[in-house]
Amino acid sequence: MSAPDLSMMDWIAVDWGTSHLRAWAMTGDRPLCHARSGQGMAQLSQDAFEPALLALIGDWLPAGQVTPVLACGMVGSRQGWVEARYRAVPCTPLAGPLVRAPARDGRLCCHIVAGLKQTSPADVIRGEETQIAGFLARNPGWDGVICLPGTHSKWAHISAGEVVSFQSFLTGEIFALLSEQSVLRHTLAGWDAAGFEAGFAQGFERPDRLLARLFGLRAGALLDGLPPDRARAKLSGLLIGAELAAAKPYWLGQTLAVIGADALAQLYARALAGLSVPVSTHDATEMTLAGLDAARALLTETPCET
Amino acid sequence: MSAPDLSMMDWIAVDWGTSHLRAWAMTGDRPLCHARSGQGMAQLSQDAFEPALLALIGDWLPAGQVTPVLACGMVGSRQGWVEARYRAVPCTPLAGPLVRAPARDGRLCCHIVAGLKQTSPADVIRGEETQIAGFLARNPGWDGVICLPGTHSKWAHISAGEVVSFQSFLTGEIFALLSEQSVLRHTLAGWDAAGFEAGFAQGFERPDRLLARLFGLRAGALLDGLPPDRARAKLSGLLIGAELAAAKPYWLGQTLAVIGADALAQLYARALAGLSVPVSTHDATEMTLAGLDAARALLTETPCET
Repeated sequence: MSAPDLSMMDWIAVDWGTSHLRAWAMTGDRPLCHARSGQGMAQLSQDAFEPALLALIGDWLPAGQVTPVLACGMVGSRQGWVEARYRAVPCTPLAGPLVRAPARDGRLCCHIVAGLKQTSPADVIRGEETQIAGFLARNPGWDGVICLPGTHSKWAHISAGEVVSFQSFLTGEIFALLSEQSVLRHTLAGWDAAGFEAGFAQGFERPDRLLARLFGLRAGALLDGLPPDRARAKLSGLLIGAELAAAKPYWLGQTLAVIGADALAQLYARALAGLSVPVSTHDATEMTLAGLDAARALLTETPCET
Repeated sequence: MSAPDLSMMDWIAVDWGTSHLRAWAMTGDRPLCHARSGQGMAQLSQDAFEPALLALIGDWLPAGQVTPVLACGMVGSRQGWVEARYRAVPCTPLAGPLVRAPARDGRLCCHIVAGLKQTSPADVIRGEETQIAGFLARNPGWDGVICLPGTHSKWAHISAGEVVSFQSFLTGEIFALLSEQSVLRHTLAGWDAAGFEAGFAQGFERPDRLLARLFGLRAGALLDGLPPDRARAKLSGLLIGAELAAAKPYWLGQTLAVIGADALAQLYARALAGLSVPVSTHDATEMTLAGLDAARALLTETPCET
C-alpha cells in the first residue's frame, strides 16, 4: 500500500477505540492506505475528536469536496465525540439513521455506528457490531455463533441476519492486568504452546477454581521452576478455558465464526476445534472495513450534503 | 499507647511485607508503641533493609545493648533481607532455627521466620504462618481450618498443631486491580452491603461465570444505573463468593477461624456463617504479634549474643 493513489479515495473508514485511533482511505470496499495514532477515546475531551482525526487524515482530504467518514467504536459512547445510543437486541447489527458527528471542517462528513445493548442479562457491544455486520455482509444468510475474542470478548448468537443475544467476558483485560501489574508479572514472559494447552485443560475443566489456579502460577515459579514462557501461556489458557466453559451454551451444537486479531483468533479457534466445534476464523480489521462499507450504504438515508 | 515507657521494651516485632514495614516495641507479649513506613520489600535492595529498619525504629534501641528483633513476611523471601527458606507441610507453623539477618549495627539482633510450602498443588505462604502460630499459641490444641483473607487469601487445614495443607487464592489482588485499574474503575466507589450479598450469591452459586459477571458490572452501570457503591460491593461479593465455592473442601463440616483485618474478616465470617459454618474471627495484627512472641521462644536455640 505504498504510494497510494488518493485520487481514487471515495470515503474514509475509522475504528476509534478506547486507546487507539485507526483510519483507512477507501475506494469502494478496498483500503488504499492506513494510518493510526494513540489518540484513543479515553484521552480526548469532546471538542478534541475532530482535531485528533484531522491530525491523522487531514492530508488525505481533497479541498472543496466533502469526504464521507464512517466510524465505529468507543467514539460513539457517552464520553465520545457524539453519543450513538445503543440499539436493543434482537436486531440487525447495523441500521440507519447513523449519528452525525459535529465537525467544523467542511471537508468532513462523519457518521458513527451505534452499539448494541441487551437488557437481561445487562450487556453492551460497541465496535464489534460493525465486525458482525461486515461478516454477515460477506456471508449473507449465515446462521450460527460469532466469537470475538479481545479485551472484552464477545459471543453473539446470529439468526436470520439479527443478533439474537450476546455475552461479554472480561478475559483479555484480566490477562493484561495480571500479566503486567500483578504479583505474577515477575514470572511471566514469552509463550510456550504446551503451557497454553495445560492451562486451557485446567481452566475449561474447573473454571470454578480460577482464583486458586492463578496463584498457583506464582507458586509454581517459586517451587517448581515453572518457566516464564510456560507460565504466561498457561495464564492465557486458564482464562480462555474458563471463558469457553462459561460460554458453552453459546457454542454447543453450533457453527462458530471467530473474528479477531490473528494469533488470538487462532488460539480460540484451535481450542474450539478441540471441542469438536466447526469453526472458521476471520480477520478483525477486514470485518471492520466490510462492516463500515455496509454502513456507508445507509448514508443514502442520512446523506452528506455539501 | 502515647508516651510509652521504652525502658520496658525487651524485643521488637516486625511485620515486613511487599509494600509496608510495621514495627512494635514489645514488653513480653504486649506492644508498647508501633511505627510504620512504606519501605516494603519490593522497593529495597538487599543492603537497604537494615537502614530502612533503623530509620523506623533506631530511636527505640538503647545504646550498648542488643535488642532482639523478630520479623516475618516477605523480608524473608529470596528478594528480601536474607532468605528464610520455605518449610514443607505438613509441619508446625513455626520452628527453629530461625534465620539471622546480617546487621552492622551491634544493637540489632534480627531473626526472620520461615514461610511454608506445599508440593502438590504447588503453593506458598509467607507471613501468614506467623499468624497461624499466634492463633495456635493462644488456642492450644485447636483443630480446624484457618482462613486468612487478604491480597492472597489463604486457607489452612490445622490438625494436631500442624499445618496439614493449604490453598491460596488471588482474590484480594484481583479486587484491587479491577477496582483501581480496569474499565470497571469508572463505575465503582463506596460500599453497599446489599450489593455484596447479591454478588456473593451469584459468585458462590456459579463461580464458573465469573469472567462474564465481571463485565456485567460495567453493563449494569451503563444500562441499569447500577450505583457505584452497589457495584463495588457486588464485585467484592462475586470474587469472595467464587473463592468460598472453590474452598468448599476446606470449610465443609469444619470449625473455622478467620484471621484478618477487621472489615474483611467480618465479610468472610458473615458469609461463612450464612453457609452454617461455625466461625470465629481474630485480629490479624494481634495474631502476628502473638506468633512473633512464640518465635521469640525459639531464640534459645539461636541466641542473640552481645
